[in-house]
Amino acid sequence: MFSFDLIATQNRARTGRFHTPHGELATPVFAPVGTQATVKTLTPEHLKSIRASLVLSNTYHLYLRPGDELVAEMGGLHEFMQWPGPMLTDSGGFQVFSLSDTRKIDDDGVTFKSHIDGSTHRFTPERSIQIQENLGADIIMAFDECADPNDQAYIAKATERTHRWAERSLAAHKRADQALFGIMQGGVDPDLRRASAEFISSLPFLGIAIGGLSVGETKREMYETLDMVTPLLPEDKPRYLMGVGTPEDLIEGIRRGIDIFDCVLPTRLARHNAAFSSEGRLNLMNASYARDRRPIDETCDCYTCRTFTRAYLRHLIVAKELLAGTLLSIHNLRALIRLMEEMRIAIQDGSFEAKVPSLLAQWQGNAERASKTKNTK
Amino acid sequence: MFSFDLIATQNRARTGRFHTPHGELATPVFAPVGTQATVKTLTPEHLKSIRASLVLSNTYHLYLRPGDELVAEMGGLHEFMQWPGPMLTDSGGFQVFSLSDTRKIDDDGVTFKSHIDGSTHRFTPERSIQIQENLGADIIMAFDECADPNDQAYIAKATERTHRWAERSLAAHKRADQALFGIMQGGVDPDLRRASAEFISSLPFLGIAIGGLSVGETKREMYETLDMVTPLLPEDKPRYLMGVGTPEDLIEGIRRGIDIFDCVLPTRLARHNAAFSSEGRLNLMNASYARDRRPIDETCDCYTCRTFTRAYLRHLIVAKELLAGTLLSIHNLRALIRLMEEMRIAIQDGSFEAKVPSLLAQWQGNAERASKTKNTK
Repeated sequence: MFSFDLIATQNRARTGRFHTPHGELATPVFAPVGTQATVKTLTPEHLKSIRASLVLSNTYHLYLRPGDELVAEMGGLHEFMQWPGPMLTDSGGFQVFSLSDTRKIDDDGVTFKSHIDGSTHRFTPERSIQIQENLGADIIMAFDECADPNDQAYIAKATERTHRWAERSLAAHKRADQALFGIMQGGVDPDLRRASAEFISSLPFLGIAIGGLSVGETKREMYETLDMVTPLLPEDKPRYLMGVGTPEDLIEGIRRGIDIFDCVLPTRLARHNAAFSSEGRLNLMNASYARDRRPIDETCDCYTCRTFTRAYLRHLIVAKELLAGTLLSIHNLRALIRLMEEMRIAIQDGSFEAKVPSLLAQWQGNAERASKTKNTK
Repeated sequence: MFSFDLIATQNRARTGRFHTPHGELATPVFAPVGTQATVKTLTPEHLKSIRASLVLSNTYHLYLRPGDELVAEMGGLHEFMQWPGPMLTDSGGFQVFSLSDTRKIDDDGVTFKSHIDGSTHRFTPERSIQIQENLGADIIMAFDECADPNDQAYIAKATERTHRWAERSLAAHKRADQALFGIMQGGVDPDLRRASAEFISSLPFLGIAIGGLSVGETKREMYETLDMVTPLLPEDKPRYLMGVGTPEDLIEGIRRGIDIFDCVLPTRLARHNAAFSSEGRLNLMNASYARDRRPIDETCDCYTCRTFTRAYLRHLIVAKELLAGTLLSIHNLRALIRLMEEMRIAIQDGSFEAKVPSLLAQWQGNAERASKTKNTK
């Protein structure tokens, strides 16, 4: 039901195809985030028009609202939100640690209070898998614990706990039409990372995720960790760098052998009037765009760029019209998806490494690293 | 450049075609309101998908933001907002009277303060026409004064002033590619209404609008005024009932010979989680829809009804996802546009009057009359 075929590699960069019950993913792939069973302000038609393939949704949010059992009753997440393509759910762990008001972690699981109404809930590896089975995404994630990257003692403990929870997640996993991915932790400590990469790789997961990055460490620390980690991973499983990222991080991640990414950055920036462009990031609120007849990006093929001027987009923003968020989300997501398409082609024709400097020059400075902690509500 | 052809009539109901430089309008027609050069939360693609034909935009708002001269520089309203079909702008008068913080009316015009920043501005008939020429809609409106329907002395004065302003609007009008419509006033006073209908009809306007209704009078007063007024109007000019209305008012208006309507009600209700349906109005926040697999309206052909369950729409509303407003706006507008299509066909095949009771039974109670005063910000 699942298979991963590498088509081409260049140095450590890879392009391939991951087959899922809801279609094939061309990798490397960037997944728009649909936290609450909707990519904010966009319809599934919009998602098709920007050629999105994989859509992520958040287990923590859907468990609390509308409830995973309700989603299951409605035929599962694909049917509920009418997204016909591949989907991925996270385990809920990260959001419990970053969003819920209070939480108590023990070796068995975590008890937390809802950020919506303060009610008390408990996640364990078994419960997370059960909820994700109710939601029914194609790719589901093991329950893990993401520790503060600067707290060495806590990282060691959390990594060890993540390993036990990985085994329990595997044991709890039943649905053959869902691919369970393991998550390594280990912060930016080389020994812990190596041990975690090796341990998670030794288990029968269908894919390997790198957790605990892009959570407060420096870019350099993130890239060095990736440099060290990806050579330890099995070649034949897809690798997922969770919650990343900026255009620059996508380029640097692919270069280091990553296959799957997700991030709220494109839609979050859209809600803050910012647009990716190959000239650098634009803040469309800026008065200099008031009479600017150009699209956001002359090179972009999205509906927004094919249709509207910067002047009109600025007017919508100034006039507080919600359509601005929709149009900027379309553009920002398409910009990253198009960047991925470009990199897939370059890996296939062997030109990727040669293109990296110009890609970085084009896309660097488009965005600071997203703070995942703040982006998920 | 403009022509109006009646295709069929039944009693006083009419169906016809109004030719404009941006295409033909099949009448009776309902115009979605795009106050600030956007029908709130919808793209022009959405408007095409619901088969909108005429789109209204508000002169007062566009004059203040982004400014009519900027819109003219950007190629006019059609080009600016990328709506390729017919457009209509109001004169700005109604909004000045209902929205601006303070205003001083004299026989020459009105001085008012912006609701945005308190700055002082002045509209006269000549200025309103000049602004509407800058905006460039296909149908533009004479500058009028809409009086409180319960203040008899003021109505008489305002109606007289509206007549002088109608003459001045005509004299100021230059662009041959814009059809100038006159507006009658007169409140619900039969003598004033008759005099105003006859006076406005005597001037060389390309269409006649009925102002000063749906502003606080009863439904019965509105229908009686229409009963009296439409027989006084020339057969060969389109008749526009401004700011109306509810599904019921559309049926009753068409029955009395109205050709053009506009109202913010469908999009405003959408923002308040309410949906028109042939079973009566639904408040989709209601817990009873949490597991409801049906579309809003089984008989509706809109994207929302073809795609999503009430359960999903309720989830979006409860989770405060903006997509709910987009999906409900698509549905509510399509519901009214479809009702107009149904009535046009019925007038053509002679079945309209026979259908009125069942149409009213289906659509009555879907909505209270919109308060135009509150709906335009």
